[in-house]
Amino acid sequence: MTYCVAMRLKAGLLFASDTRTNAGVDHIASFGKMHQFQIPHQREIVLLNAGNLATTQSVLSLLRQRLQGEGEHLLNVPSLYDAAVLVGRTLKEVVARDSAGGGLNQGVDFGANFLLGGQIKGEGPRLFHIYPQGNFIEATEDTPYFQIGESKYGKPIIDRVIKYETTLLPEAAKCTLVSFDSTIRSNLSVGLPIDIVMLRANQFEQAMQPPHRIGREDPYFSRLREGWSEGLRKVFEDLPDEPWFEN
Amino acid sequence: MTYCVAMRLKAGLLFASDTRTNAGVDHIASFGKMHQFQIPHQREIVLLNAGNLATTQSVLSLLRQRLQGEGEHLLNVPSLYDAAVLVGRTLKEVVARDSAGGGLNQGVDFGANFLLGGQIKGEGPRLFHIYPQGNFIEATEDTPYFQIGESKYGKPIIDRVIKYETTLLPEAAKCTLVSFDSTIRSNLSVGLPIDIVMLRANQFEQAMQPPHRIGREDPYFSRLREGWSEGLRKVFEDLPDEPWFEN
Repeated sequence: MTYCVAMRLKAGLLFASDTRTNAGVDHIASFGKMHQFQIPHQREIVLLNAGNLATTQSVLSLLRQRLQGEGEHLLNVPSLYDAAVLVGRTLKEVVARDSAGGGLNQGVDFGANFLLGGQIKGEGPRLFHIYPQGNFIEATEDTPYFQIGESKYGKPIIDRVIKYETTLLPEAAKCTLVSFDSTIRSNLSVGLPIDIVMLRANQFEQAMQPPHRIGREDPYFSRLREGWSEGLRKVFEDLPDEPWFEN
Repeated sequence: MTYCVAMRLKAGLLFASDTRTNAGVDHIASFGKMHQFQIPHQREIVLLNAGNLATTQSVLSLLRQRLQGEGEHLLNVPSLYDAAVLVGRTLKEVVARDSAGGGLNQGVDFGANFLLGGQIKGEGPRLFHIYPQGNFIEATEDTPYFQIGESKYGKPIIDRVIKYETTLLPEAAKCTLVSFDSTIRSNLSVGLPIDIVMLRANQFEQAMQPPHRIGREDPYFSRLREGWSEGLRKVFEDLPDEPWFEN
């Protein structure tokens, strides 16, 4: 399984993903799910993936391979909308090819979801969720974040904290890590390290950095987990008792 | 959808369920999902259900109808284990009958899950999760709780708080309501009122009471939701900021 979240806030974009992949519980491996494409000072694109690993790897291979070619690719499409169309089309191409085996499919789900976000100079930051069918939706001020993969455990804290006006730092970054903590505690198939990238809106001066990677030994993440866990326990203990059970 | 949780703790049993049923978003109704069977001072049994409403209603109707008969029923089986066998068998009987339509099924899922718990004098409190296939598992000291229905949003808080030694009151009851709060906030298809029942271990003096029902106007639940929400926000704000983003 996988857990990825991306946010498009007023201040900019945030992307985070875990790195665990599994095919059954006895075949667990680490694969990065965050992929960056950029022309420094002109366009910054981040792609997160969840779903069938063969499908997502093939989509990424084709997207990268075609950067050299003459046709449309992620570094020459005029808008992020066109980038979403391109990723959706590539996804359909891969699934059509791989699922053509007919009787060999054995009920395998070839599907994958992608989160595509970033900024191309000339337009604002944008964020898309591309479905297994290749179509997609775009984040708005009312719905500023998307999740893919094992999303439910980590959703309540995001719903409580994240608004379009929320700051990238510290709020959105902290909230994202707490959301990952809840997910990792409840689902074995989501695991450290976490990759995280933030892109401030309209700032092309500095080139996009590689993801910050948060591993098992990360002292900040450990303090955050402990602080959250102790804080929750404290809040829980301080909650009022039930008057209606006193009968 | 539905959310039900049941716990078998050292102190006794706790059962809670929401009351919303939906078939699509435009067909939402209220149906209790908690059903009690008892012989006062001798046996107390609670059944929670999730899944296909036609199936669960039929299973309950048959279980109740047969209480009058000569055969095995919930009020005469010798152990709670046998009660679980009986519920599983009745479930399979209903699904076999209803799904026999062949071409009429139109992909409908006839399945249902049940949580069955209680105490029959002569044995300790027991709790079972009965699967759509009619087989079942029993709660142990290591795994003292089960959830059915929309379980993920409300799982993290239970995982953090509930151990076999946790008190029924106030801890398990409060934790259950917080778990429902998280679920209701994140999933429209789970809704108030909540039904909740607690059975202290080995106490047959008082007959089992009907569920305590917590509705929209319940002042205690409102205070709990507010206290939890404000407490979480406060803990979140007090979490340390990320040193690794200061570059």
